[in-house]
Amino acid sequence: MSELLARAKHALATQPFSVLLNAEIVDYSSGYAELRIPIKDHLKQQHGFLHGGVVAYAADNGLAFAGGSVLGPAIISSEFKINYLRPATGDFLVARATVVHSGKSQAVCRCDVFVLDGNGERLCATAQGTIVKMSRSSDGTA
Amino acid sequence: MSELLARAKHALATQPFSVLLNAEIVDYSSGYAELRIPIKDHLKQQHGFLHGGVVAYAADNGLAFAGGSVLGPAIISSEFKINYLRPATGDFLVARATVVHSGKSQAVCRCDVFVLDGNGERLCATAQGTIVKMSRSSDGTA
Amino acid sequence: MSELLARAKHALATQPFSVLLNAEIVDYSSGYAELRIPIKDHLKQQHGFLHGGVVAYAADNGLAFAGGSVLGPAIISSEFKINYLRPATGDFLVARATVVHSGKSQAVCRCDVFVLDGNGERLCATAQGTIVKMSRSSDGTA
Amino acid sequence: MSELLARAKHALATQPFSVLLNAEIVDYSSGYAELRIPIKDHLKQQHGFLHGGVVAYAADNGLAFAGGSVLGPAIISSEFKINYLRPATGDFLVARATVVHSGKSQAVCRCDVFVLDGNGERLCATAQGTIVKMSRSSDGTA
Repeated sequence: MSELLARAKHALATQPFSVLLNAEIVDYSSGYAELRIPIKDHLKQQHGFLHGGVVAYAADNGLAFAGGSVLGPAIISSEFKINYLRPATGDFLVARATVVHSGKSQAVCRCDVFVLDGNGERLCATAQGTIVKMSRSSDGTA
Repeated sequence: MSELLARAKHALATQPFSVLLNAEIVDYSSGYAELRIPIKDHLKQQHGFLHGGVVAYAADNGLAFAGGSVLGPAIISSEFKINYLRPATGDFLVARATVVHSGKSQAVCRCDVFVLDGNGERLCATAQGTIVKMSRSSDGTA
Repeated sequence: MSELLARAKHALATQPFSVLLNAEIVDYSSGYAELRIPIKDHLKQQHGFLHGGVVAYAADNGLAFAGGSVLGPAIISSEFKINYLRPATGDFLVARATVVHSGKSQAVCRCDVFVLDGNGERLCATAQGTIVKMSRSSDGTA
Repeated sequence: MSELLARAKHALATQPFSVLLNAEIVDYSSGYAELRIPIKDHLKQQHGFLHGGVVAYAADNGLAFAGGSVLGPAIISSEFKINYLRPATGDFLVARATVVHSGKSQAVCRCDVFVLDGNGERLCATAQGTIVKMSRSSDGTA
């Protein structure tokens, strides 16, 4: 395991909400982050699909970790947009985020969210957003 | 309690993820939904603030319930955008969502998310998104 | 006319693209900007409606002027999101933008875009976005 | 020239606003559209950069043409989000849009917008949005 990935795993483990969701960071390098969440019943909505809020969490955190891979760990999400593409049903949710552009104080990132099961993987949501260094201001939340 | 609010409370109670977060729907009428979530340690990120994923969940679900108040209960989130405005710290998170425009098959809604404590309330995020009737297609997730 | 409005009119007049579209700033105060564009044939798309790009321009510039009213004139648009609500047809397009939240270096703003004719006005699009001070970085464009 | 590209060129030529901006469609196939706009002084803002409204137009129209390549020509933009990445300065603006996911009635698309000059090309904005079939409802505008 790379030192970068080890540090990202440690950072994720310090987020109680990520621990609650059993989120795991499975790949991490400069400009890239991949998170995985087991799809369990308590994360679903009334139709039996994964709740959109979990998908949004995965996108938000994927974007934040990707941004952090180039900006350093002291970052927060400034904003993001997500399109839901199909109902999320399967064994795992996988969020793959990349940095599209980064400057001194912010990175614009993209995150594709997939569902994984025995039949392979299917794109279920796609997101785009801005991650900013915390030092810039005290605005925002991660 | 209005019958509409009672039905919305029942709908929220059928979402396991909303139950996990202790989300409560506290006000509901045609074109309006208000959700409340107690801010507990297990919902936080590493800096002690509420995790952005919880704020995104509240916005997503607020938008969906507001949309459902005019489109009926069989709806899904199609897309939304959220701007985080300040770190979410306090006793409760409150999401207030309104319908901006609705047609036959979709509603565009807005959601302001506040933190509440003994000092009053502060806006911590604002969101805008599209809620669609499930009958339109099988795309999306709620 | 207030001095603030006079300065905003002057600023708009220095934007060649705004001059090309005959955009006019008709109201301006701290936290608020209102732009108006005559709906002419050369601004339309193939179905006879105002082109979405003109509506997006109005939203983008409305957001930027609203942000500039609290951040000062040296600002740029960082990002925005727009939902089109109905086809834009009428005599004038009117963009009304307000500041939702502002900090030292950025303002999150909202803009409702209306069409105006002899029958009154109708909301045709709504937008939300981030305006940043130019001094923060050289990223972005206005 | 493919018949698809010829038809797209014809469609663009029927949009008066696209003609006003001298927009040209230079590549078009199923799931892909590429637009090009010469950067002229009358399209700029007060700092000498291309106006953000022109960049937003290019993104909106790129998304719409990409969506139309899989949904057919009777489409409208439902919503989109754009992040501006750097000031747009150069000889040409180039918008490259792809379809991320499409269903019966809508397509979610992505559009990267570049500036081109003698030194090559640079990404200046990125957008994501939803294009819908006009038959679905009368909402929206293109």
